[in-house]
Amino acid sequence: MWKFNAKTHYIAELRGLEEGENVRLAGWVQRKSELGGIVFIRMRDATGSVQVVLREGNLSEQELTAARGAGIEASIIVEGSLRRDPRAPGGLEVIASKFILVGDSKDFPIKPGVGEEFLLDNRHLHIRTTRMRNALMIRMEVMRATEEWFVNNGFVRVEAPTFVGAAVEGGATLFEVPYFGKKAYLTQSSQFYLEAAIFSFENVYTIQPSFRAEKSRTRRHLTEFWHAEAEMAWADLNGMMDVVESLVKYIVEKVVERASDKLEALGRRMEAIEGRFPRITYDEALELAKRKGAEIEWGEDFGTEVERLISLEFDLPVFVTHYPKKAKAFYHKQDPKRPEVVLCADLLAPEGIGEIVGGGQRIESENELISRIVEEGLNPEDYKWYLDLRRYGSVPHSGFGLGIERTIRWIAGLPHIRDAIPFPRTPVRLYP
Amino acid sequence: MWKFNAKTHYIAELRGLEEGENVRLAGWVQRKSELGGIVFIRMRDATGSVQVVLREGNLSEQELTAARGAGIEASIIVEGSLRRDPRAPGGLEVIASKFILVGDSKDFPIKPGVGEEFLLDNRHLHIRTTRMRNALMIRMEVMRATEEWFVNNGFVRVEAPTFVGAAVEGGATLFEVPYFGKKAYLTQSSQFYLEAAIFSFENVYTIQPSFRAEKSRTRRHLTEFWHAEAEMAWADLNGMMDVVESLVKYIVEKVVERASDKLEALGRRMEAIEGRFPRITYDEALELAKRKGAEIEWGEDFGTEVERLISLEFDLPVFVTHYPKKAKAFYHKQDPKRPEVVLCADLLAPEGIGEIVGGGQRIESENELISRIVEEGLNPEDYKWYLDLRRYGSVPHSGFGLGIERTIRWIAGLPHIRDAIPFPRTPVRLYP
Repeated sequence: MWKFNAKTHYIAELRGLEEGENVRLAGWVQRKSELGGIVFIRMRDATGSVQVVLREGNLSEQELTAARGAGIEASIIVEGSLRRDPRAPGGLEVIASKFILVGDSKDFPIKPGVGEEFLLDNRHLHIRTTRMRNALMIRMEVMRATEEWFVNNGFVRVEAPTFVGAAVEGGATLFEVPYFGKKAYLTQSSQFYLEAAIFSFENVYTIQPSFRAEKSRTRRHLTEFWHAEAEMAWADLNGMMDVVESLVKYIVEKVVERASDKLEALGRRMEAIEGRFPRITYDEALELAKRKGAEIEWGEDFGTEVERLISLEFDLPVFVTHYPKKAKAFYHKQDPKRPEVVLCADLLAPEGIGEIVGGGQRIESENELISRIVEEGLNPEDYKWYLDLRRYGSVPHSGFGLGIERTIRWIAGLPHIRDAIPFPRTPVRLYP
Repeated sequence: MWKFNAKTHYIAELRGLEEGENVRLAGWVQRKSELGGIVFIRMRDATGSVQVVLREGNLSEQELTAARGAGIEASIIVEGSLRRDPRAPGGLEVIASKFILVGDSKDFPIKPGVGEEFLLDNRHLHIRTTRMRNALMIRMEVMRATEEWFVNNGFVRVEAPTFVGAAVEGGATLFEVPYFGKKAYLTQSSQFYLEAAIFSFENVYTIQPSFRAEKSRTRRHLTEFWHAEAEMAWADLNGMMDVVESLVKYIVEKVVERASDKLEALGRRMEAIEGRFPRITYDEALELAKRKGAEIEWGEDFGTEVERLISLEFDLPVFVTHYPKKAKAFYHKQDPKRPEVVLCADLLAPEGIGEIVGGGQRIESENELISRIVEEGLNPEDYKWYLDLRRYGSVPHSGFGLGIERTIRWIAGLPHIRDAIPFPRTPVRLYP
């Protein structure tokens, strides 16, 4: 770990040192108490926390006064010697020989009992709490594992633009941006751009923000979310599901391996996934949901509640395939054996979480694509470059998008998606 | 590399096979010729290209007719046996026993002699050319090396929001977005959010898009660019420069190591950087620029042309430090020894490229920060949460932002920044 001059060690490094070694630590006051004139400070840094013991004789009166006055979250630098003490939390403490109050902190506002809205309004401070730190470290591991899987499997990273010129999937949930006298929209998905890139690199991906102007205030929607997307030349629906299954298993495996302490601290039990993910059709899922009391007709897309019912029936993530054509976007390839359904698959995470991945096989024929665009009441002129991809050496291909925050919410067992991202954005939340 | 059923091998894997082995390849027609009734197809896939030999006897008349008719960029599947032939380019060829024309391609529009605007209008096809493929592979290596450096050095990844509620650095170059009856802006920098995160994780970074509504049409500006940013608790200006130097050297080293063939194909000579980056002050840089004929007064920020003049004087990237306070944003810490300058550093890439990194030490005192906000004619009310970071355990800290596309432009030796990103966005370019 990169280290600056303020400290000789990170707290996590103390474990490997000898008793009596001199260290200089820099961090923040997590807790403080005084017993018989001795000040005990629980000090945290980026890597952990340790007890610091400050007593007369070792420190000047000024230093002791500063230590006594230091508020919760004050920043401090401590020099001292390491002592192993089984009574100390973690079995270690630092006997201070020098104390510097770097930046004081009075009445740190994040306290037990404050409300949810207050915490969101003070997100810039709330992220310092142990719970948020654990959630965000799990987030980082999910992001890293996702990137790693693609690197390990030879996918080429290709970034798509955020500004797009046309309202690709229809305009209901698009953010519009004035753009030098024209109109631009914020991307909802990198899919079309990744489809262009398969002709260069075959298997491509990106991990970047997507935007949805959805007014729905649910526990699983954000207006801005991180989206891992991939497109693969020569992949059919089953090939795509194999990729998604391998990716999701890898993410879970690596998070469990690298952040088990964070999962545990959040009270989450999670293990690497052994079995194959079940693959059921929309029709089967529909029957299942109906048996559970859902009122839904064949042809409708599954909403949050129906997905919840289905996913509660499985211990593993489950693929739901072959949705009705009319429930899905125009670019999905129809099943040649049954043209009223398309070759698509959503992956529903268990425990009621619902969709974390959506994908499928894309139409590769120009004529078929034009027919579907027209059938949906859209204008083929708006899809000129996208149609070009079917004019010059078109190939069968499939792709998918994985919602990073939904995946984190599932793996970390978070009650609300907003805690899966450092600074959440919803229709009513633009601050801090 | 992940592989789908259409192929048994990627072209790059052929080198490791025995003569006579049977392979099935899937890819696109790069070139085609016919000699004495034998059809030669130069076929490419994501990994390379190989010569395919199609002759009577081995193939049906139908297959030969299809092969003869296949246009440039048609997608094809070929089965055949591997032959080593020193006369073939790459020393290998595939003697076809089966040929499938998957998707034909007539009059592929990317041809020698078409104009720049035409290529930009057909970017979705232009990215298939060898030159663009090489540039984009170098881009990927720059992105990966950047991420890797941060991972290797224990930095925690923290994503910042794209939608921000306040016009942080002044509004001249901000994109405004209607947001559920309110106004949002697109982020210009993740800096403030990363500063909030140092109190949890000390050394933090992100790599994500930033947005600038700059009308300037230069070879080094995009309205949307990828921005690698970091903030580090306890880091002073020198500590920050050490980080930047290590990062930039790592990026160059890894690109040279992993993409030397792509650099070579682009005609670019680049080597890993051995020496330390020179560190000169603004005053020294100003004198240098004036000697070279620049007309500039002390206090002005350096423009494109002045940076070009300075960077031409050095073989290595050079840090320019201690700019006049009035040339930099309000959050830069003043030099205690010389308050008219701030503790900042820009890194200028050589060969006239100019700034690729900007950064510096941030003001850690609340009062000093408020004074500077007021001095700049801004309203401290708009910086409420940012000021909070100085109220609760403030620490000395520094940070920087590295422009990914500028860095790629330099390393790959690209004449224009737009070729450093798959789908560039400029004031006049929103398509495809």
